[in-house]
Amino acid sequence: MTTAKTPRIDGERLLRRLNDLGAIGAIDGGGCARLALTDADKAGRDLVCGWMRELGLSVSIDAIGNAVGIRAGRRPGPPVMAGSHIDTVRTGGRYDGNLGVLAGLEVVAALNDAGVETEHPLAVAFFTNEEGSRFAPDMMGSLVFTGELPLATALDTVGIDGARVGDELARIGYAGDTPVPHPAPRAYVELHIEQGPVLDHESVEIGVVESVQGISWTEIEIGGVSNHAGTTPMSLRCDPGWAAGSIIAFVRELARELGGSQVATVGRIEFFPNLINVVPERAVLTVDLRNTDETTLQQAEARLHAHLDALRAQEKVTITTRRLARFEPVPFAPEMTALIERHAKAQGRSTRRLPSGAGHDAQILAAVCPAAMIFVPSVEGISHNVREFTPPDQLEAGANVLLSVLCELAGADA
Amino acid sequence: MTTAKTPRIDGERLLRRLNDLGAIGAIDGGGCARLALTDADKAGRDLVCGWMRELGLSVSIDAIGNAVGIRAGRRPGPPVMAGSHIDTVRTGGRYDGNLGVLAGLEVVAALNDAGVETEHPLAVAFFTNEEGSRFAPDMMGSLVFTGELPLATALDTVGIDGARVGDELARIGYAGDTPVPHPAPRAYVELHIEQGPVLDHESVEIGVVESVQGISWTEIEIGGVSNHAGTTPMSLRCDPGWAAGSIIAFVRELARELGGSQVATVGRIEFFPNLINVVPERAVLTVDLRNTDETTLQQAEARLHAHLDALRAQEKVTITTRRLARFEPVPFAPEMTALIERHAKAQGRSTRRLPSGAGHDAQILAAVCPAAMIFVPSVEGISHNVREFTPPDQLEAGANVLLSVLCELAGADA
Repeated sequence: MTTAKTPRIDGERLLRRLNDLGAIGAIDGGGCARLALTDADKAGRDLVCGWMRELGLSVSIDAIGNAVGIRAGRRPGPPVMAGSHIDTVRTGGRYDGNLGVLAGLEVVAALNDAGVETEHPLAVAFFTNEEGSRFAPDMMGSLVFTGELPLATALDTVGIDGARVGDELARIGYAGDTPVPHPAPRAYVELHIEQGPVLDHESVEIGVVESVQGISWTEIEIGGVSNHAGTTPMSLRCDPGWAAGSIIAFVRELARELGGSQVATVGRIEFFPNLINVVPERAVLTVDLRNTDETTLQQAEARLHAHLDALRAQEKVTITTRRLARFEPVPFAPEMTALIERHAKAQGRSTRRLPSGAGHDAQILAAVCPAAMIFVPSVEGISHNVREFTPPDQLEAGANVLLSVLCELAGADA
Repeated sequence: MTTAKTPRIDGERLLRRLNDLGAIGAIDGGGCARLALTDADKAGRDLVCGWMRELGLSVSIDAIGNAVGIRAGRRPGPPVMAGSHIDTVRTGGRYDGNLGVLAGLEVVAALNDAGVETEHPLAVAFFTNEEGSRFAPDMMGSLVFTGELPLATALDTVGIDGARVGDELARIGYAGDTPVPHPAPRAYVELHIEQGPVLDHESVEIGVVESVQGISWTEIEIGGVSNHAGTTPMSLRCDPGWAAGSIIAFVRELARELGGSQVATVGRIEFFPNLINVVPERAVLTVDLRNTDETTLQQAEARLHAHLDALRAQEKVTITTRRLARFEPVPFAPEMTALIERHAKAQGRSTRRLPSGAGHDAQILAAVCPAAMIFVPSVEGISHNVREFTPPDQLEAGANVLLSVLCELAGADA
């Protein structure tokens, strides 16, 4: 056994890998388009798997295309895993997902450079189709990894372009032979950009993610009576457009009253026939409710439905609702959260506990092992956008927290 | 001079003409498509002008294609005029406009049958392009008739299909030689379907139209910051979608508070990018405000703009407005309104005074002569729709009121 030096993240090497991966599927403005299982995704996978092998990792590909690179520990057993995804949305950035995977590789490189061994194996993984932009559901690879989604269902999924997941995996050469579900890792840690404005707005360097918000998506269709905007007295209207406006105003007030992590958004709306001088016959809108607390989220849903009942009675409109998505909140293991916070503070970083408003592979892994997430700031909260950006020193700071957390979890000899 | 009988409307003959004209440009569901100056409009014009000549009227076509059929009086001078339009919207009904013209012809037929002469000439007119569906502005023919719109401007108007009014008039043979503007008629009376639900809802047979509502159309564009619906706390949002919802709720409340004839409608709205999980970057909506009282309409506009100022400050959104249309209210001559009411009551009809929420040729004629309108009910207020309907007995009742009003105005010898 060699005498180990203290491992250190090489920020420039991390950035170089981010830029090299970002060059694949690059789009104007500095962004990336590597939809899951496309040719661009294959090229990205080939690059990252090549780096894994160069770093001495033992790479396996499973039946849904998840890639896991293992660095052996002093004893066998389940690995401590870092991971995320390398697929992107159609007009995405170069940090979302990629950072967690490439920071994991940088941790391995740093350990290799410093000659550090670990008690337990260390793994770096990227999961197939986290974004869900081409194939639903999102987080497909991690869902199959843990056994929450049957492999056959995932393989038979048909995407927005008519392609089938199983066929595309075979076509790009990533239908691997490692069986799923996997044995549970010893622990899972995911470094990710916040994709929201909180850390940037408060000038905090490291976000300690306590939980992933529960999500409730409802589509609301309102039917009324289309009429001439000039000739129909207000008292004789059944106006779906007004009802839609009332819902928009209501959900904002609902979020204000519930407070805490509650957010509420109407992001999509359509009127029919959508003419200036016609009271709409029909309006369709969506309500996105999120909370870290399941009980409060259910309360928000119940109050929304009570408001819809009141609208039915008041405006004599018909209202039908359709649940488009529903996920319960996922709390991360408190000892993992505390661990991240302790290491970040030890490195002199400002920290803030916060929930994740977006979905991540870590919430799926949390069902089978202690899991946690480290956030670094997103400038202006911009993500899923070519303008997504995190300054290099903040990327490096996040990777250094990941490094020391993984070292403690894996039992590094440094 | 022959001894005159009492003239009576022949309801079946009126209905036959409505159906014969409705057969031209007929569309599924019982409706009509005779956009101004199309081949279908030409065929409708030919039919109506033919009927005018059969009834002994002296027909002239003016430079904008308005047709006027004159029945001579015992002395010369300006005629008492009945009129409306025979163009339709793209998916219109068979009553809107057509009723006023064909009831005018039925009045002439009734006078002819009864051998009734009048002191003043009687005219029946149809005006070019009242609907404005193909060429803007609407009420083009009556605007040129009275001199409010220059002929050259009207002729040079290019429509939604790229056609020019002057070329289309020549093509269908209705670029006439009667000069415009015309001398003012002695009076103008227009029978029309209500196109709103008030008379039908209250089971009133005859609407006595006191005025045409003023119209204020505003397009509002709101700019904010597009963000992830899950990761952006409510306190950090600049949400144009919420601002749009607030405007919808505000204008309803505004109409309620102002009361009277005030109506307010948001009929058109768009969010960008219009995705369930994205706080919109931009929202565009329209506000349609109408009132019979100009002062109150100005007050409504001022309060809307004050609300927009408050939204700018509260939500930190940008708001720009564009005025799409603005017409002042047009009051009809009180003596004309009283005359219609008196004749309707004398015929045992239930009556109700009401404003017109839609624009009509009568409001243009009101600038040059005493003008008035008679409304008959629209079932369920449906208009500009193939389901537009008024029962035959109500059409006949309206035509009988028109008959006796015209007889008094023209000095019939019955």
